[in-house]
Amino acid sequence: MSLAAAILAGDRRALAQALTLVESRPDEADAIVAEIYPHTGDGIVVGVTGAPGVGKSTLVDRLAGAFLERGRKVGILAVDPSSPFTGGALLGDRVRMAGRGSEVFMRSLATRGHLGGLARATPRAIQLLQAFGKDLILLETVGAGQSEVDVMGFADTTIVVVVPGLGDEVQAFKAGILEIGDIFVVNKADRPGADQTLRELRQMLHLGPLRPWQPPVLAAQAQSDVGTEAVVDAILRHHEVRLGDPERRSRRLQEAERLVREALADQLVQEVVARAQGLGNWTELLAAVADRRIDPAGAARALAHPVPSD
Amino acid sequence: MSLAAAILAGDRRALAQALTLVESRPDEADAIVAEIYPHTGDGIVVGVTGAPGVGKSTLVDRLAGAFLERGRKVGILAVDPSSPFTGGALLGDRVRMAGRGSEVFMRSLATRGHLGGLARATPRAIQLLQAFGKDLILLETVGAGQSEVDVMGFADTTIVVVVPGLGDEVQAFKAGILEIGDIFVVNKADRPGADQTLRELRQMLHLGPLRPWQPPVLAAQAQSDVGTEAVVDAILRHHEVRLGDPERRSRRLQEAERLVREALADQLVQEVVARAQGLGNWTELLAAVADRRIDPAGAARALAHPVPSD
Repeated sequence: MSLAAAILAGDRRALAQALTLVESRPDEADAIVAEIYPHTGDGIVVGVTGAPGVGKSTLVDRLAGAFLERGRKVGILAVDPSSPFTGGALLGDRVRMAGRGSEVFMRSLATRGHLGGLARATPRAIQLLQAFGKDLILLETVGAGQSEVDVMGFADTTIVVVVPGLGDEVQAFKAGILEIGDIFVVNKADRPGADQTLRELRQMLHLGPLRPWQPPVLAAQAQSDVGTEAVVDAILRHHEVRLGDPERRSRRLQEAERLVREALADQLVQEVVARAQGLGNWTELLAAVADRRIDPAGAARALAHPVPSD
Repeated sequence: MSLAAAILAGDRRALAQALTLVESRPDEADAIVAEIYPHTGDGIVVGVTGAPGVGKSTLVDRLAGAFLERGRKVGILAVDPSSPFTGGALLGDRVRMAGRGSEVFMRSLATRGHLGGLARATPRAIQLLQAFGKDLILLETVGAGQSEVDVMGFADTTIVVVVPGLGDEVQAFKAGILEIGDIFVVNKADRPGADQTLRELRQMLHLGPLRPWQPPVLAAQAQSDVGTEAVVDAILRHHEVRLGDPERRSRRLQEAERLVREALADQLVQEVVARAQGLGNWTELLAAVADRRIDPAGAARALAHPVPSD
């Protein structure tokens, strides 16, 4: 049985193996993704983002539990820009989260070093989980920077988590967090200043463009499981609104375009570089760029359209 | 006189115009970048990163002043993932920073929407400033996520700024901040807990791999210009160490490779998409991907290597 067939048959170890491929040897994952692709795209992908320390993991925990109780098949992807220093911390997370119960499949996703690696791996990891049968995927990010905003582009519903009196809310919103949120959760709402944070957030959201979906701002205390149901309801309501959205088709096409363009970039660059290496002029051109004898775009043009030498 | 020639002649408005092109219409900037490219690569690029609110802008201010006094030609690039909501905030920054004195050229760099836009624009903006004659460029980021880590890849020396008792230090370090820092600054060092933060940071850094350059951890109070000189000295010492680094050449080649690969991806994808649009099968393929009839990598292969129909 192929790895893809095993995933479709519900083999958990095959899923884990394929996720590792997607993460670390993307080329080898191509065939698997192609085979499972017709069985993807269903269910809901819920992104959860926010600054470090606001309680994202705990909220994700609670949401996973609540959706399980409603009969959903839940998967969790924790997306983390990795670092050699933090292997320990990551493993710690994995162990902690593995305690969520055997029906939740949880995976930390981290790609080392290369620009855009997570943007490439995340949609494919989602597809693998969907092919495995998960119809509710929680996508959790570690930070709140631009890469998190990019990752949230793969979610159907994005939850932005803040805490009262962090003081940095306005700063976080500068990074584009405000307009990507479909649902806002003020967590640790027993802390002083919660009412003010709720009020300020609602005001800021009203400054934005009027949208068919007006993002709710909800109070929660994930640690004691307070407010979880309201968040679940908001997610399901948002899902209903999305299903009826006339722009749904055009959003799906945009998503498809992004994935095709990225796959094209990967394949085309690899081919051209391999050709240049075969001809022996790759190293030479890089040296010319490093020495400022030719600019990077000029070098790229020379590689893409070599002048025939014979 | 071409725009590139005007920049090389020291025309400030030409520089501003070219920076806008690099930021918003990258294709049109190709010719300018090609012309100025031989005049780039000199001087020092200093990156300053850290969580919102730690005082990065103030420190950058102080460093700019100190380097000006030492006869350096200083440019500042403030890199900010932009958002439609925050146009006001960005403009505010610009006005505030323009008060730094006429000898400092300051520019906010923001690219909207598209993945990797800042990674593409940042090196070219640095090149323009260098061609204009700036030999000390301060590169300031807004947040501390993966995109900031990526942007810092363009700096020769990276300063990570933290404040005492933020509580999120460990979290920030998860995002890979710890190993990209060449110099650490504990700002607002008059606050309680500064000594502990200094001590903890030094301990964490000693856990890392032994490097030829052991990153110093310095206390500062940028608001009152305390500690600025020690940071300047550390930057210059790091520069000296880098000049003698036997791996300097291989780092330059790696940087060249990254830039060439990105330029290749841009050009090749644009060509293939234009061809498919001309043939009228671009929209059709995107619909097939959206409907799960073909996977993105398969669609890319079909586009890159179309089967001849005649």
